[in-house]
Amino acid sequence: MSERTRERMVKAGAEIMHRKGFLGAGLQEILDAAEAPRGSFYHYFKSKEDFALAIVDYHAANFSSLAQRFLAKDGLTPMARLRGFFEWFREVYAEKGYTCGCPFGNMAQEMADLSEPLRARLNKRIDDIATFMQNLIKAGQEAGEVKAELDSQETAYFLVAAWQGTLIRMKVAKSPEPIDEFLKFTFDLLLAEPE
Amino acid sequence: MSERTRERMVKAGAEIMHRKGFLGAGLQEILDAAEAPRGSFYHYFKSKEDFALAIVDYHAANFSSLAQRFLAKDGLTPMARLRGFFEWFREVYAEKGYTCGCPFGNMAQEMADLSEPLRARLNKRIDDIATFMQNLIKAGQEAGEVKAELDSQETAYFLVAAWQGTLIRMKVAKSPEPIDEFLKFTFDLLLAEPE
Repeated sequence: MSERTRERMVKAGAEIMHRKGFLGAGLQEILDAAEAPRGSFYHYFKSKEDFALAIVDYHAANFSSLAQRFLAKDGLTPMARLRGFFEWFREVYAEKGYTCGCPFGNMAQEMADLSEPLRARLNKRIDDIATFMQNLIKAGQEAGEVKAELDSQETAYFLVAAWQGTLIRMKVAKSPEPIDEFLKFTFDLLLAEPE
Repeated sequence: MSERTRERMVKAGAEIMHRKGFLGAGLQEILDAAEAPRGSFYHYFKSKEDFALAIVDYHAANFSSLAQRFLAKDGLTPMARLRGFFEWFREVYAEKGYTCGCPFGNMAQEMADLSEPLRARLNKRIDDIATFMQNLIKAGQEAGEVKAELDSQETAYFLVAAWQGTLIRMKVAKSPEPIDEFLKFTFDLLLAEPE
């Protein structure tokens, strides 16, 4: 058994939990998907909760890479960068048939009341996402494309919240419309400085 | 066994599923809470999914009573009525220690990809909630207190989505701040016609 086995388990678990939730994801299914030896789970993880903490960090690392990719794009205004980020997810969810939603929001909804360690870790990760957005909102204000009177931190948290609910509605409506409404109400109506 | 037993089971199941989710709610725990005879579950319900459909309708009936109560209040403008509705929930969640969230959003998040009957029923119930809000938004536009250029249906759906995400963030932050941000960004900044 190697570090590679642990990584494969986290990756497989992240994918399965994203689709089925914390409680819905079976350990045997995860071991099978990771081609990990039967019984090896508790060699790497103290509990399913401990495993889920590793999964939250795995998603956070992926989010961070994605955020860096959007920050590194050439020739975009701060708002085009931030909007492009949500539009990229629109394509991802179209490919997924409007299933799954956000792994952070899903686990927050399911586990925030049932596991204090997961609640605290998710809260921190959601703070990180809000900070990424806040920085782009601030830059947009400096560039004159975002209303100057908005509090950038509050606005970032509202965007995160509205996005989470948008993905719930997307899952239940099985349609891109909630994402289109999100983009319109947040970027066009709330954020944009009228020309 | 009587109709009363079935009602007690739905009520107990609604409360337990609200806290623990569909998968997290154990049938034995529900039977115990409802003081229902062991083994009586499948007398009333074909499956846990069938039971959850009854729970969705139970919550919808409660929502409808609540909505009627807010519609019947004297001397409020349409927006004061709608805002009062969300503010009422702010108090409810403060009493609950910012736990649980919305039973429709929770089940949508957990089950929309796992049960087509639940997805379809929740979609319909969310449509009903959006219609209640749309009617108030339209009345607010007629009264001149909501921006006339907003599409009332899209706005209602965006409110529903933003509220669902707000409750996820409330659960994970264990704080009323997300609700305060929701009220500010939707009512004050998005909906209100500038004076």
